[in-house]
Amino acid sequence: MATYTPPLRDMRFVYHELFGGDDLQNLPGYSDFSGDTVDAILEEAGKLSAEVLFPLNRSGDEEGCHFENGVVRTPKGFKEAYAQFIAGGWTGLNGDPDYGGQGAPKSVNALVEEMICSANMAFGMYPGLTHGAYNALKLYGTDEQKQAYLPKFIDGTWSGTMCLTEPQCGTDLGLVRTKAEPQADGSYAITGTKIFISAGEHDLTENIVHLVLARMPDSPAGIKGISLFICPKFLPKPDGTPGARNGAACGAIEHKMGIKASATCVMNFDGARGWLVGEKNKGMRGMFAMMNTARLGVGLQGLGLSEVSYQGALLYARERLQGRGLKGAVHPEKPADPLIVHPDVRKNLLTMKSLTEGMRALTIWVAMSQDMAEKAATEEERTRHDDLIQFLTPVIKAFGTDIGFDCANIGVQIFGGHGYIREHGMEQYVRDARITQIYEGTNGIQALDLVGRKMTQHYGRYMRAFFHPVQEFIEQNITDPQMEEIVTTLAQGFGSLQAAVGQVAQKGMSNPNEAGAAATDLLKILSYVSVGYMWAKMAKLAYTKLNDDPTGFYKGKIKTANFYMQKLMPQVSALLGSLMAGGASIMDMEDELFDAAVAA
Amino acid sequence: MATYTPPLRDMRFVYHELFGGDDLQNLPGYSDFSGDTVDAILEEAGKLSAEVLFPLNRSGDEEGCHFENGVVRTPKGFKEAYAQFIAGGWTGLNGDPDYGGQGAPKSVNALVEEMICSANMAFGMYPGLTHGAYNALKLYGTDEQKQAYLPKFIDGTWSGTMCLTEPQCGTDLGLVRTKAEPQADGSYAITGTKIFISAGEHDLTENIVHLVLARMPDSPAGIKGISLFICPKFLPKPDGTPGARNGAACGAIEHKMGIKASATCVMNFDGARGWLVGEKNKGMRGMFAMMNTARLGVGLQGLGLSEVSYQGALLYARERLQGRGLKGAVHPEKPADPLIVHPDVRKNLLTMKSLTEGMRALTIWVAMSQDMAEKAATEEERTRHDDLIQFLTPVIKAFGTDIGFDCANIGVQIFGGHGYIREHGMEQYVRDARITQIYEGTNGIQALDLVGRKMTQHYGRYMRAFFHPVQEFIEQNITDPQMEEIVTTLAQGFGSLQAAVGQVAQKGMSNPNEAGAAATDLLKILSYVSVGYMWAKMAKLAYTKLNDDPTGFYKGKIKTANFYMQKLMPQVSALLGSLMAGGASIMDMEDELFDAAVAA
Repeated sequence: MATYTPPLRDMRFVYHELFGGDDLQNLPGYSDFSGDTVDAILEEAGKLSAEVLFPLNRSGDEEGCHFENGVVRTPKGFKEAYAQFIAGGWTGLNGDPDYGGQGAPKSVNALVEEMICSANMAFGMYPGLTHGAYNALKLYGTDEQKQAYLPKFIDGTWSGTMCLTEPQCGTDLGLVRTKAEPQADGSYAITGTKIFISAGEHDLTENIVHLVLARMPDSPAGIKGISLFICPKFLPKPDGTPGARNGAACGAIEHKMGIKASATCVMNFDGARGWLVGEKNKGMRGMFAMMNTARLGVGLQGLGLSEVSYQGALLYARERLQGRGLKGAVHPEKPADPLIVHPDVRKNLLTMKSLTEGMRALTIWVAMSQDMAEKAATEEERTRHDDLIQFLTPVIKAFGTDIGFDCANIGVQIFGGHGYIREHGMEQYVRDARITQIYEGTNGIQALDLVGRKMTQHYGRYMRAFFHPVQEFIEQNITDPQMEEIVTTLAQGFGSLQAAVGQVAQKGMSNPNEAGAAATDLLKILSYVSVGYMWAKMAKLAYTKLNDDPTGFYKGKIKTANFYMQKLMPQVSALLGSLMAGGASIMDMEDELFDAAVAA
Repeated sequence: MATYTPPLRDMRFVYHELFGGDDLQNLPGYSDFSGDTVDAILEEAGKLSAEVLFPLNRSGDEEGCHFENGVVRTPKGFKEAYAQFIAGGWTGLNGDPDYGGQGAPKSVNALVEEMICSANMAFGMYPGLTHGAYNALKLYGTDEQKQAYLPKFIDGTWSGTMCLTEPQCGTDLGLVRTKAEPQADGSYAITGTKIFISAGEHDLTENIVHLVLARMPDSPAGIKGISLFICPKFLPKPDGTPGARNGAACGAIEHKMGIKASATCVMNFDGARGWLVGEKNKGMRGMFAMMNTARLGVGLQGLGLSEVSYQGALLYARERLQGRGLKGAVHPEKPADPLIVHPDVRKNLLTMKSLTEGMRALTIWVAMSQDMAEKAATEEERTRHDDLIQFLTPVIKAFGTDIGFDCANIGVQIFGGHGYIREHGMEQYVRDARITQIYEGTNGIQALDLVGRKMTQHYGRYMRAFFHPVQEFIEQNITDPQMEEIVTTLAQGFGSLQAAVGQVAQKGMSNPNEAGAAATDLLKILSYVSVGYMWAKMAKLAYTKLNDDPTGFYKGKIKTANFYMQKLMPQVSALLGSLMAGGASIMDMEDELFDAAVAA
């Protein structure tokens, strides 16, 4: 059976010990967030996740959302859970106190999000989307817009959406056709169809506020003619309560592979009233403000699913008796040994554990950089942290979701046939995880973002924000005898990463298709090395704490680090081999030959 | 949208050109199967698959099976399709003419099975299971049993099942508890519960014949006390028609991730009458007779799903307009370029194409070896072919299903958000494929079969049946300038395989856990090298045919071979790196440390 215990021990380790999160309270606005307060928040969030959200996860999947006459009902129990969620203030945890939020560090919020995603990813979509809309509006909205909407997003009584995709355009938003026609009163009449709109319609909040990409009549074609609009389901009255119904309606909900409790809507805008957010034709800016938060959030979904898959698989591996240890019975008193005695099962479990904990560390490093990028004392510091975020966002999104999917699948595999049965809850994680590799920019697009933008901008400055600390760590620890094997493996991986970057920079300069062909290999190399760097840092720290290790937590960290280095870092060599072979074998195949073997 | 065209061109290439299948007609019993006849069979099977089975694939998934009061109804259209299926003689294609079959080569049957699985894997389960029961009974049944059942299996009016799994035992069949008590009339009273019984109950045939593993009262504990029984739903009357209802009933059907149109049953045997098949306490033999056929069949399911996923993805990549080529617009007259211009999409398509076609060649090599192992003139030849089957069966099952799952996922990824929507049919392939990595021995078990049995038996004789032809091919072609790069890469991979085998043999001798820890890495290395060998052979042949290549089929083969060598063979280096690191990091982790990071 699926099971979930909030991984608080590891969260505390990562937050307090590994990254010194307690120092965040010295930043402006964070003085309330002492280590103890953070622990209390995590504990409460863990309780809510395990006790309120997790029990609705499978029933929500089985029941799905209901659509009738433009109205969407969420599955049984979701309304009550959401009421509890907002009563606890969770929608405002990270919100600006000026608008009623609690102003917690983003890194704390990230840990809370991970738990929500482990417990019930589909539920988490509703507040998650609101969070994206909040960020866009906070950055680009007028004061009036902020006053009208941000407090509602923060108290959770209103929710938000991102309306980007249309039937003819997903990745390529330059193809957006939705029109926004200026009206005499300064508003716009928005007309068009948006698809795949998560939380586009539901019964959890009293209003739903759409952030819509659309094109004004006199705007240029393509991406430079897109503006961002705010378009609420109910027009706010002067007193701030929901007023007249706007012309934005849900036409259908999608039947999907997973996240069935999350309503994915076709939204029809039929001359709906909307207001410009930010500058005309600069809608992509606001979109990216939503998107960057969303990408980290999606990475956290992957992380949450890998954690909960691991926990389910571990429990089963301990309880299920099947076969005998290869060296003979380990538990001769039982009719068979538990699965965990089998080397391949252990390897699978350690793969999940090392990817999950490594990815948690990496994600919190980036999330804490968000806190620093906003609040650090000097511009130099703020820039350096922002550079790191820029560079690692593709890793958090793509690798976080790849491991989410992979670990969910390993979980099913450990359960065997029982994993394939819906009742046990493990296969749902696979179906839920599958979307995370696709939305908010497919993982292929993340790779293009890395090679086309993140690597090259400011002459590679983003990259240096990652390369410098890794380089420094290697230099400082290569002579530590305890760390020799780990650091040597990390250094080899880092060398491969540098070679790969050099190759892509050189070949991609003259032929962009070479960069495109290498992109996913490069992103994966960077991912394995980043997580490897986390494991090296964790092992280093753990070695200093072995004297006081009653639960074996630190010993477990060191052993898991060794596993990662020995069993997963070798992936880098395969990726480098593929990358170094260049893009000719990909680009030289004539389009018509792709189905030469199919045709009769 | 999902689409399916039988890949007849490639099938003809593999059957006739690559492996000289036309020579099979010189074997005893195969004289009717000229090249033209084989082509006609494939064409007809392709039609049936594309026109009758494929249109029922998505509706079958949506509707699923119905269970009420012990009765199972298959989805709408399945009964009619099955009637057409047996009217066409497809259940008897490969059956012994002595019992009414057509006696076609197993390799022809394998190609037919691939098409059925592409078109409708869940449908294919029903005749597929019958095929397994047929094989077990043919090998171990008495004459009377064969006369009573084989003609019914062949004409498809009766179907078969394999009843192995019980709630407490899957992989470890030594834990079977189902009892078989001898009766005065020579029959046995079978009592127990079997789970995960595919086709255990349904409405397609007039009788369902269960082959059941059970234990006699005086049998020893464990695997050496298991016998095989035949236990029909309706007891055959002397005239061969179904008579009295037997005490074998379906108690429930499972709700699964996929293959929803295939009824997965809980079967309750309540003193059901059954008859011993083969010798007492030697039930595992009959089980393996079913299992080995089933493992090749499951590999074909993976292959079928990767083919149909590829076709869907290719069509979409050509039609969906999104973004522009990285070097500028490729189709400036269109609002955007088709997906296929993008390097990462092409890489994904070529990954699918090279894995699918490579795996098809490998599977048919093994299937043709089955024909030879049964019918070749000399015992030396028959043994050599059987050795190859033994050695490569884990590859066919595990790698065939791994690529099925991987290609199904790549297909979804190319579709983006549209791939996640049920309507487009691509996500079903992922859900259907997922079970293939689990049943008939999980892929981890296949790896143990390789290192524990196939590598070691007869002092490595099975292995030599594969190593010799590869070695010979490399020696003969390393000096061919056209083939230099391909053969060099193959030779490197082959060297890695030999090193890996050496390592496992050496370390595994003193510590079986070392072999267990290395098993999946080794199986994957063997898989990449086997498929690489196929691509090298195909490229070699294609080079001789470039003069007459109107459709570019042979050119496409060579380019795909290059892609495989450059982009996928590097996987071997990662696997070797992991394998060479040994099993210590897997086995040394104390069991209790696996959740040291979870607990608070």
